[in-house]
Amino acid sequence: MNRHPKITLVGAGPGDTDLISLKGLKALATADAVLYDALVNEELLDYAPKHALRIFVGKRANHHTFSQLETNRMMVELAQTNGHVVRLKGGDPFVFGRGGEELDYAAENNITTAVVPGISSAIALAGLQGVPLTYRGISESFWVITGATTAGSVSKDIHAAARTDATVVVLMGLNKLSEIARIYQGAGRGNLPVAVIQNGSLPDEKTALGTMDNIADEAQARQIGAPAVIIIGEVVAKHVQYGSKRSREDAIAV
Amino acid sequence: MNRHPKITLVGAGPGDTDLISLKGLKALATADAVLYDALVNEELLDYAPKHALRIFVGKRANHHTFSQLETNRMMVELAQTNGHVVRLKGGDPFVFGRGGEELDYAAENNITTAVVPGISSAIALAGLQGVPLTYRGISESFWVITGATTAGSVSKDIHAAARTDATVVVLMGLNKLSEIARIYQGAGRGNLPVAVIQNGSLPDEKTALGTMDNIADEAQARQIGAPAVIIIGEVVAKHVQYGSKRSREDAIAV
Repeated sequence: MNRHPKITLVGAGPGDTDLISLKGLKALATADAVLYDALVNEELLDYAPKHALRIFVGKRANHHTFSQLETNRMMVELAQTNGHVVRLKGGDPFVFGRGGEELDYAAENNITTAVVPGISSAIALAGLQGVPLTYRGISESFWVITGATTAGSVSKDIHAAARTDATVVVLMGLNKLSEIARIYQGAGRGNLPVAVIQNGSLPDEKTALGTMDNIADEAQARQIGAPAVIIIGEVVAKHVQYGSKRSREDAIAV
Repeated sequence: MNRHPKITLVGAGPGDTDLISLKGLKALATADAVLYDALVNEELLDYAPKHALRIFVGKRANHHTFSQLETNRMMVELAQTNGHVVRLKGGDPFVFGRGGEELDYAAENNITTAVVPGISSAIALAGLQGVPLTYRGISESFWVITGATTAGSVSKDIHAAARTDATVVVLMGLNKLSEIARIYQGAGRGNLPVAVIQNGSLPDEKTALGTMDNIADEAQARQIGAPAVIIIGEVVAKHVQYGSKRSREDAIAV
């Protein structure tokens, strides 16, 4: 092996293969091995050289699930034996991607690292549907929170966020949707607009629109499943279909 | 003019031309006019066809400054006369970019629109320096806040954020740095790590590291100017140079 060991964390973007950066493509083009997650669009692997190993390290039914430690070890071992390892991660590597832990593990093993940021679904999926996360006079900030805390409970940050005017984006929180809605209702904000987007940026994208009072039913009626992003705030009313929500809801109820 | 009027909001990314998405490049390649901001790397204009108009609509010394309304009108008029207008914006179009207002204005004038998300400096600039915005056991969320509110004062969201464990990212807030530090000190968090990054992702990138108690002095000592991003939270201690901050500080004091 002649190549210097190196690990590059690359953000693959939210799903649409054209939403990876030019820099990400250039990193892939020099990869000797690519370790990729479940949320990565596999068509991106075509940008890696033919000789490069392609290893799935995500969670998926009927697959062996790698622990974070196993992934870290494989990443370092492959860098030592094969050279340039691209760790291809959905969205941005540091938005709930455990990219920080991978960087730390590489540093502990004296492997050179680089980072290529990605387009995070936290920001992009609202924008692709014309919902601006910030809007003069409506929202001066947005707060991105994980729905999947280590402890398994809803993050205390969501309790705090329900009492601010920030636009709130919850990732990996679909199975907590009813609980989140109750938190907002408890803060007197049952009328707050909400969107839930599954498979954003992809051809099979699905969206549920509603308020905190009805979003859990809306998401169920449209059979929204994971992975999904929840967007909470007055800016959601900017969605072109938001005004027609009621009539569509009635149509489904029939 | 044979082309159908169309406006595409494109996120140019944080500065490095390789951090634009493939989709953004494809939009530029079909532009008949490009309207671009001060934070956009002008080298990206090379991706537009030769015939495309290139119009600077940002704020810069010795230039006419376009109001948002003038920009909106020009964008719509050019779409009607020339065809495909690419509105090229720094970072992501909807992260304090007034992209929402431009989308609304286009819709009022019945112009077809599309959005290409971008890599936001809010997420990317920390990551490029190895600072993860979220980290298991340290931060379950990140909160992105503008330093430049319409009212001119520090956003009330910063007051709220100072009392949470969220990683906080402030955009366009360099001239409020001392005031932000006082808010955190008032919340008993003078020891909280902070980074200030100017011209992130570009060759002339500059970074100041410190705590709330000394970051204003640190930024001044390193002559940090706008545009700059402020990153606040325990994750900043992950920066490889954070541990050596004190010695570098002493070196500068000599």
